[in-house]
Amino acid sequence: MTQNSSGSEIERLIQLLARLPGLGPRSARRAALHLIKNREKLLAPLATALAAAHENVTICSACGNVDTTDPCTLCKDPRRDPSIICVVEEVGDLWALERSAALNGLYHVIGGTLSAIEGIRPEDLNISKLIERAASGEVKEIVLAVNATVDGHTTAHYITERLKDCNVSVSRLAHGVPVGGELDYLDEGTLIAAMKSRRPF
Amino acid sequence: MTQNSSGSEIERLIQLLARLPGLGPRSARRAALHLIKNREKLLAPLATALAAAHENVTICSACGNVDTTDPCTLCKDPRRDPSIICVVEEVGDLWALERSAALNGLYHVIGGTLSAIEGIRPEDLNISKLIERAASGEVKEIVLAVNATVDGHTTAHYITERLKDCNVSVSRLAHGVPVGGELDYLDEGTLIAAMKSRRPF
Repeated sequence: MTQNSSGSEIERLIQLLARLPGLGPRSARRAALHLIKNREKLLAPLATALAAAHENVTICSACGNVDTTDPCTLCKDPRRDPSIICVVEEVGDLWALERSAALNGLYHVIGGTLSAIEGIRPEDLNISKLIERAASGEVKEIVLAVNATVDGHTTAHYITERLKDCNVSVSRLAHGVPVGGELDYLDEGTLIAAMKSRRPF
Repeated sequence: MTQNSSGSEIERLIQLLARLPGLGPRSARRAALHLIKNREKLLAPLATALAAAHENVTICSACGNVDTTDPCTLCKDPRRDPSIICVVEEVGDLWALERSAALNGLYHVIGGTLSAIEGIRPEDLNISKLIERAASGEVKEIVLAVNATVDGHTTAHYITERLKDCNVSVSRLAHGVPVGGELDYLDEGTLIAAMKSRRPF
């Protein structure tokens, strides 16, 4: 869009929206127009919500979750079992596990995976803090819920090695056929893993 | 995401982002996380930009464009030819034409198309104002740049009928092969239109 077809405020809004993941320049323009058309119902509340998030959202110093309090709601919840810590790469993974309600323990966000190619070393990740928590005596099990990628695997191995002296058991998520998944569409690695871990019916 | 996995401020932000076109609940969560991670570089400026847009953006009372001034930058520009008015359905179409710099005239946004199915009648669109502008004496040509859809066609016919007494010439965008387009991928309607309007080479 050229400068003279609309105000620079709109131009700036489009540029910022285009930097969101999932939005390109074209969809950012559509989003901006949609916002302007729904001025009171969407534009104003979104401006307020962003300002509130900027004001209040912080990172939990214990687990790395994002929340409006530190320690976060999860870490503070007395109904959660502090003897299990689930290690995830990103906050989005934590949210996904929370939606599934698969675990009633605590979390630890390491902030990525080790990667030789991208030059991400152990000290770039939130791992030392995890070892500290694991060594505190309260923790009995560490569940490694990293992604099932090569880098995720490497990271899981590295963390397991570091946890050797901590007297905690280390587990990882099971591999297998996704619920609702069709065998025909699955890769061979998944099928081999699912076959290896087959269980009595 | 359940309420207890993060603050309600984040939850609210995700809900609002999910209402943008092109973002669903999943990508809204990703966008929210991306915003929180880029707190100073993206979240804060976007909050400011939205507040500024809410404060300043208005709809041009002459042509229906959105801008920070009324009349808009285009309507006020003395270098533009006021004898040509290009009629578009939506502001997004106006922006698209402006990016192409195909026209140095003025615009008129009618805000949609007539539609029997959706119950959109002439009085629901910004058409009367267009007839007024066309009848002012200054206008020589009306270019109908509505979409090449059935409803767009109906609307174009209706507007042409209304303009009969206005002493302006009415034109429409040419149909044909898009520049860079491959014949093999084009529909028959486009090919027929392109063949009919073939020109000496």
